[in-house]
Amino acid sequence: MHLASRLDRLGTETAFAVSLAAAAWAAKGHRVYPFHLGDMNLPTPANVVAAMDRAIADGRTGYCAAAGIAPLREALAADVGARRGLEYSPEQVVVQPGGKPVIGKFVQSVMEPGDEVLYPNPGYPIYESQIEYFGGTAVPYRYLETPRGFALDLDHLATLITPRTRAIIYNDLQNPLSAEATPEEMAAVAELAVAHDLWVLSDEAYFEMRYSGTSTSIASLPGMQERTVILYTFSKKFAMTGWRLGAAIAPAPLAATIAKINTNDESCTAHFVQWAGVEAVTGDQAGPAALLAELRTRRDAAVDAVNAIPGMHTARPEATFYLFVNVTGAVESTGFHDVSDFATAALERTGVSFCTRRHFGRPQPGETEHYIRLAYSGIDAADITDGLARLGDWIAG
Amino acid sequence: MHLASRLDRLGTETAFAVSLAAAAWAAKGHRVYPFHLGDMNLPTPANVVAAMDRAIADGRTGYCAAAGIAPLREALAADVGARRGLEYSPEQVVVQPGGKPVIGKFVQSVMEPGDEVLYPNPGYPIYESQIEYFGGTAVPYRYLETPRGFALDLDHLATLITPRTRAIIYNDLQNPLSAEATPEEMAAVAELAVAHDLWVLSDEAYFEMRYSGTSTSIASLPGMQERTVILYTFSKKFAMTGWRLGAAIAPAPLAATIAKINTNDESCTAHFVQWAGVEAVTGDQAGPAALLAELRTRRDAAVDAVNAIPGMHTARPEATFYLFVNVTGAVESTGFHDVSDFATAALERTGVSFCTRRHFGRPQPGETEHYIRLAYSGIDAADITDGLARLGDWIAG
Repeated sequence: MHLASRLDRLGTETAFAVSLAAAAWAAKGHRVYPFHLGDMNLPTPANVVAAMDRAIADGRTGYCAAAGIAPLREALAADVGARRGLEYSPEQVVVQPGGKPVIGKFVQSVMEPGDEVLYPNPGYPIYESQIEYFGGTAVPYRYLETPRGFALDLDHLATLITPRTRAIIYNDLQNPLSAEATPEEMAAVAELAVAHDLWVLSDEAYFEMRYSGTSTSIASLPGMQERTVILYTFSKKFAMTGWRLGAAIAPAPLAATIAKINTNDESCTAHFVQWAGVEAVTGDQAGPAALLAELRTRRDAAVDAVNAIPGMHTARPEATFYLFVNVTGAVESTGFHDVSDFATAALERTGVSFCTRRHFGRPQPGETEHYIRLAYSGIDAADITDGLARLGDWIAG
Repeated sequence: MHLASRLDRLGTETAFAVSLAAAAWAAKGHRVYPFHLGDMNLPTPANVVAAMDRAIADGRTGYCAAAGIAPLREALAADVGARRGLEYSPEQVVVQPGGKPVIGKFVQSVMEPGDEVLYPNPGYPIYESQIEYFGGTAVPYRYLETPRGFALDLDHLATLITPRTRAIIYNDLQNPLSAEATPEEMAAVAELAVAHDLWVLSDEAYFEMRYSGTSTSIASLPGMQERTVILYTFSKKFAMTGWRLGAAIAPAPLAATIAKINTNDESCTAHFVQWAGVEAVTGDQAGPAALLAELRTRRDAAVDAVNAIPGMHTARPEATFYLFVNVTGAVESTGFHDVSDFATAALERTGVSFCTRRHFGRPQPGETEHYIRLAYSGIDAADITDGLARLGDWIAG
């Protein structure tokens, strides 16, 4: 039986293959140090779970509105707005089963077939997949390594804009780079968006996952709120990845459109899960505070250990839970030419499992350095130190 | 800011407007009898809730595989297969956040732009919406009223098939008609599908919502399993509408495709909700049995009351929880020409709220009778009797 040709344009997250390889290696009796997971090995705060149980006991097990329950839309409008210095109405908040659905719903709502959409590469691979699936041209922009981390290549970005450019997907506090824009960098991106009348998807999944300072949303810059959709998720801040709860926060007409897509797709997000979300946003914040403290400890353990390994180096990002580590020297010293081969050998020689640059988009012309992504959200600090010591011993030979 | 032109082709469920009108009427202090809800006013069985709580306590709050957890895929493969006399492997089961997402994922996977897809009208409005949204031509087929309910107009269906016909959406035990095929009728549909090499989406949302007899899946007919996707949902059988849990059960290559769409859309269905689903399918079945007994009582109350009203009549369906009532005489005797006006007047004169034929697709040429849909899943038996007596008093004048 024939399948539709549009499926030829549908991408995926190849990082799942790393999980499978790690699981297969562990199944053979080997110790695995899981740095590949974007997931978290931390429990959801108890008050959030209790709120869900109350909602079920109260009979919140039937359908609810496609855009979400009013108390959650109100809570998110207030909280997301306050943290960004913006005013949002509840009508601008459309609840989703996770943050990820916002990507596809944004793309299909603003992009005509044949339009161009700018997206970060390395970046979350679903951006590219959804742009191409809905018939657009995915145009990658790039980051440059600096002593303080990664910086968007603004000059290059400006050259990519054409009359067919419809939108830019922006992910400050970035996965996998942990890049954080300077005020000047973010302002330059916003100015391009305004000058060329572009829609912006601001993926703010890690907006509150930071260890010092404060985050800035590109939506808060002049002329931006009316062209920006914020991707909001409960996954990271509240350790709710498997709950599937997030939201699109958008200009009102686009919010109404996304709600109509909800009606067609999943009807609504699980009803009682939304009540848990109300508690998460408005209730006791001890849970997310403790989670961030734990992640900070892990970050420091990971950064210190990485920078002690010859041929590997990383900055110390103040946000996200990823390190995008330059391993060019280590790849060469261990005799490899391909970072994928290096990763496979690292797993088999040391048990350390991680994704590489290849899992975050097709390499761009001119890339000469090798990178891996270490996630520290799914591994305890002691195992971080232990695993990276083993990796270092192997590389040091 | 410009939105994409594909949105012009996106339909919706206009029945939500009925809910809003009923709520507005109730807010003015009026008693409302809610026959418009496809939702249920019955609790999810306690063992299912308890299984979810155990899953959360066991840490099932992280991501899981896009296609669903293995125990649920195994449980559904066994249960769905056994009830249909078919063998399915777990790889053919792809868990979804509800039954509804199967519609769009089927359509986008099998239909090229410009293809024709047959769908029932009156029928669930999302079929038409998703066919047109993804660039196909939605071709409605029809049912004819008989003394025993509604029968598919097979002769008409056969005339609709062209070289561009790619698929047929089939919904035996139908919403809103409660139509159930005879063996001969279902065999004729299957023969058309085989003869013209069509994909089939078999929406089996009500497969186990029946009061006597046994259901038959079109997938079990000769030559059909390899071309049929079954839409399975937990919503009705286990009173889990707001949990958003269902599955696509499909030939293996198509199942893999749908799982890849999951990866792009919602990542996975809520992890712990899937463990509740395992308990629902494999655990104590007292809950769904009690639910069906309650619905049977309501059905009989509703059928008896409807047939006592002058100018209204319905058969006594053995499945679903809907009555598609011919109200032609009542519309005329109350002085209306339009069934929508009749519905509005009924709400304001009696508090009885219901959907009409118009909420289930664009009327087809040659329709002369008037119909309404009474759902008895969201209203107790005593209120069914009370509400329909008031409706009858108004109509009798």
